Amino acid sequence: MIKEIAQHRSVRRFKDQEIPQEVMHEMLMAATRASTTGTMQLYSIIVSSSPEQKERLSPCHFNQPMVKQCAAVLTFCADVHRFSEWCFARDAEPSYQNFAWFINGTIDALLASENLSLEAQAHGLGICYLGTTIYNADQIIDILDLPKGVIPVATVVVGYPEEPMPTLTERLPLEAVVHYEKYKHYTPKDIDELYYETENSPKTAALLKENDLPNLARIFTEKRYTKPDNIRISRDYLKALIRQGFMSKDLF
Amino acid sequence: MIKEIAQHRSVRRFKDQEIPQEVMHEMLMAATRASTTGTMQLYSIIVSSSPEQKERLSPCHFNQPMVKQCAAVLTFCADVHRFSEWCFARDAEPSYQNFAWFINGTIDALLASENLSLEAQAHGLGICYLGTTIYNADQIIDILDLPKGVIPVATVVVGYPEEPMPTLTERLPLEAVVHYEKYKHYTPKDIDELYYETENSPKTAALLKENDLPNLARIFTEKRYTKPDNIRISRDYLKALIRQGFMSKDLF
Repeated sequence: MIKEIAQHRSVRRFKDQEIPQEVMHEMLMAATRASTTGTMQLYSIIVSSSPEQKERLSPCHFNQPMVKQCAAVLTFCADVHRFSEWCFARDAEPSYQNFAWFINGTIDALLASENLSLEAQAHGLGICYLGTTIYNADQIIDILDLPKGVIPVATVVVGYPEEPMPTLTERLPLEAVVHYEKYKHYTPKDIDELYYETENSPKTAALLKENDLPNLARIFTEKRYTKPDNIRISRDYLKALIRQGFMSKDLF
Repeated sequence: MIKEIAQHRSVRRFKDQEIPQEVMHEMLMAATRASTTGTMQLYSIIVSSSPEQKERLSPCHFNQPMVKQCAAVLTFCADVHRFSEWCFARDAEPSYQNFAWFINGTIDALLASENLSLEAQAHGLGICYLGTTIYNADQIIDILDLPKGVIPVATVVVGYPEEPMPTLTERLPLEAVVHYEKYKHYTPKDIDELYYETENSPKTAALLKENDLPNLARIFTEKRYTKPDNIRISRDYLKALIRQGFMSKDLF
């Protein structure tokens, strides 16, 4: 397996060490080699490495220390703005501020982000994806001064890993996520088997003790990802999509 | 640069040659090593390699010949169904059928797809992403029998490339997609410079002649991606999101 794929783990503790310009250049070039909708490159990458911008972005990511400790915070955005500006400048009428093109831009941005993440690892760097990007998109839009047609989708923090490196995290058995020809509908027995290892790991045992809950699933639903949060995030991100021109009620 | 990243090009013509099981296994394993929201693996990969399923999927992708010619059609789906089934089976109350979790699942699915695509290339295979997946999601849901909480996001066709391999496609200069600290707003002069090479390539000259239009931008807006199509696709994909439980009007 490609070494950087096989060895990927999320790194959350970084040395106080900058990324040489040529390394960053190679990472960004790797990002641009990813497949992209109709060769349009419907994304932008905002590289924030100044202490001031990392400080401003930090609360958007729940003040996780890695945001300020890392060498650079990379915000990957779906972007139809640049392409639209080009169209306007050529008397062409773009119509890309809509939901379909949010998806196209999101695909482009995420494929680029994965290339960049793997290339970063090839240079001895560590990365972590921050899912919090969609929680506070509205503030990120302000901090990064994103115009209409641009919305943040994912954030990758990158830097030289503090030793020791974290271990690889566990994954479900392959048959949990792969289906042949059609979707394989899970029986309760399938579910028991697929989650057996996860549920019976020492890590889970420690979590259950710590959280005083009877099983791992309830840690997810009651502690980590609760209904009020999920609804709040859905609403806020939809509002950000409306603000940036990607969504309107009349599409329904 | 990681060889598979540097050498990536979309392959649309394939030999009539199957993928050995151990190669497919390695590709799928590579997919699962990608970062994933809270280690939840909110995605499913549907591997369609039977002539019957490829035949059925073909019209969803505008009957592009590569869908039937490739060794396997891989449909990457955002999937909160499996995780929710696990929660239900453990008396935990999942609340993941909403828009935020469509985004989380989409991120997971796309990072996995890029890993798989790069790993495929490491084994001498070629791949092409099909943007058409979101055009006809409703039909794909039926063909693949996707339950609520599962929606297709991207499709990758994979197979052994027919020679000669296509050349690498051009990209905008790096400064077009990268911004430092904040979004750099483009002046008309920036736009001219960033699109100069694209607009003045022999490929573009040929396209203009073929399409009888004054510039490349208008080929995009008037031929390739038109307003009625964009609105239709936006509406249809939103309908598919409603059908699969990820979207409701009361989120607004």
